[in-house]
Amino acid sequence: MNYKTYRFDKPFVTEQDGVIEDLTIAYHTWGRLNAAGDNVVWVCHALTANSDVADWWQGTIEPGKFLDPERWYVVCANITGSCYGSTGPLSINPATGEPYYGDFPALTMRDIARVLDAFATAIGVGRINTIVGSSVGGFQALEWAAAAPERFERMVLIATAAYATPWAIALDETQRMAIRADGSWGERRADAAAAGLAAARAIGLLSYRGGPAYNRTQADPPSTEPAPQRRACSYQRHQGDKLVRRFNAYSYMSILDAFDTHDIGRDRGGVDAALATIAAETIVIGITTDIIFPPDEMRALAEALPHARYAEIYSDMGHDGFLVENRQLNDILIPFMNEISR
Amino acid sequence: MNYKTYRFDKPFVTEQDGVIEDLTIAYHTWGRLNAAGDNVVWVCHALTANSDVADWWQGTIEPGKFLDPERWYVVCANITGSCYGSTGPLSINPATGEPYYGDFPALTMRDIARVLDAFATAIGVGRINTIVGSSVGGFQALEWAAAAPERFERMVLIATAAYATPWAIALDETQRMAIRADGSWGERRADAAAAGLAAARAIGLLSYRGGPAYNRTQADPPSTEPAPQRRACSYQRHQGDKLVRRFNAYSYMSILDAFDTHDIGRDRGGVDAALATIAAETIVIGITTDIIFPPDEMRALAEALPHARYAEIYSDMGHDGFLVENRQLNDILIPFMNEISR
Repeated sequence: MNYKTYRFDKPFVTEQDGVIEDLTIAYHTWGRLNAAGDNVVWVCHALTANSDVADWWQGTIEPGKFLDPERWYVVCANITGSCYGSTGPLSINPATGEPYYGDFPALTMRDIARVLDAFATAIGVGRINTIVGSSVGGFQALEWAAAAPERFERMVLIATAAYATPWAIALDETQRMAIRADGSWGERRADAAAAGLAAARAIGLLSYRGGPAYNRTQADPPSTEPAPQRRACSYQRHQGDKLVRRFNAYSYMSILDAFDTHDIGRDRGGVDAALATIAAETIVIGITTDIIFPPDEMRALAEALPHARYAEIYSDMGHDGFLVENRQLNDILIPFMNEISR
Repeated sequence: MNYKTYRFDKPFVTEQDGVIEDLTIAYHTWGRLNAAGDNVVWVCHALTANSDVADWWQGTIEPGKFLDPERWYVVCANITGSCYGSTGPLSINPATGEPYYGDFPALTMRDIARVLDAFATAIGVGRINTIVGSSVGGFQALEWAAAAPERFERMVLIATAAYATPWAIALDETQRMAIRADGSWGERRADAAAAGLAAARAIGLLSYRGGPAYNRTQADPPSTEPAPQRRACSYQRHQGDKLVRRFNAYSYMSILDAFDTHDIGRDRGGVDAALATIAAETIVIGITTDIIFPPDEMRALAEALPHARYAEIYSDMGHDGFLVENRQLNDILIPFMNEISR
């Protein structure tokens, strides 16, 4: 495993004419690019993750698993706006010598994918054998594939969508409301709106898990207390606090905002027309209890793609099933990765 | 329709030894108590509603509908802790001459039901022909029926539960996190934590509606803007603001806290044992897309009650289906209300 950073030698101009003068991308790689240059597997990470796939996606990037580093040259880049080495709101703004905070340029999902495309070229990656995206990672994969279909041989889309649905946007706006309700939001410090961020994370978690997961994992023992301490309460607070220790409200808002702009159909004649241009051999994987990207929407995505099949993960863990059901993921994806390319 | 208030002549002592010196209950009635005194229909209201059933439950309390005021003497009391005329955190604390705010005694669902029981007796209601509870209203109905089974001939339970599930508690705690993230929470004024309350309401709304409702009602027109205004965002903010204008964070917290204590099995040998003591002829109604009280849990509730049948509302409006699908409700409940009592 290698961790590096790459610094662009010219400014990045966003879709909305924002300028990032000094764009750096942090990335991890596993394995080696082969002589033919045809063994690149590119992983796009989700909302608050980082480029260290082995850290957040246990049981996938090991010998014999679907991201086998002995066979594949696996690359994952931390997305623009995040806080794991790539340029984001807490990075120094060269114009002021201070962190950007709220002055960080607004990003679209298309900006984030455009950076990935330029970055891949910059580090010598041409054609990509397989692009893998789960959740917001799938947003990037689809946007990138719609913008540069010739780059991708195959695509793995897990619990994701071709556009942000009103439901997904409502989930995000509610998180923004919690952050804005924190009076310290907007203050120029890394821990601004920490309590709001914790509440936002707790909202996100409700949607990542859903009822069956909470009811199975957070049940209380019987109590004769009129108002007992509830596991579900301490769990929500604990998860909120955990994110506050490793993330910040500025990066969170930046990525949420980009999330909501996701629409691969924009300026491309609509979602179906955009999907029809994607040449990659694709597998779309839904999770039975995912309430953000429910199975029927995942199946419809597979049907709208020209070369796609559909598979399902059986899980009571909701959207988070993509992170925890790695045995099922491997069972589905090892055969897919073993297929001889067209 | 009549609106009145009733003031208890002695203090109310809560399960946790809090004292409300000066307990007043606001209530609405429709129709007239008949000579036999056997036509009382008692409606228990949900989280932020009030005793004016005709205001929040359109198409139910009209001649020919299931709460026909020409036939039934319909009563609804505003719950303790609320802010629609009954004593709550914004009421004057006789000990200080100032509103209670955060000093209002913590309530359990059992306290709220116990007040209803004492209040019913105080206004001359003995046996209740039918108790009707939806959502948190059903919590009250079940708790009251478990405490005083002899009082009830029949029961209508819509989108509710015999205990607060870990999932429902997680939804509440997340709302509390949003309120606490507002730095003005705890200040001794009626509009403390207004932004937090708005965010909490938006969280609640996500769970009341769910994905299909948002995707059908909040879809945006196609746009070529990189970051278009989204209907789902303005909807969440609008709904938050709307609640802030008619409610307050103190009452909201008081009722959320009581919600989480709901467990009719406490000190009664467990939920199933408590349900087994309920003699009322019951109809349990689930809603196909309710993600708080999903249909399978509603069906299980009906099976655990000794004299219950199960019916379902087909709706894409989620939990809020109980408020909007009044045609289906009447189709189910008019025949139920017409059955000759045992």
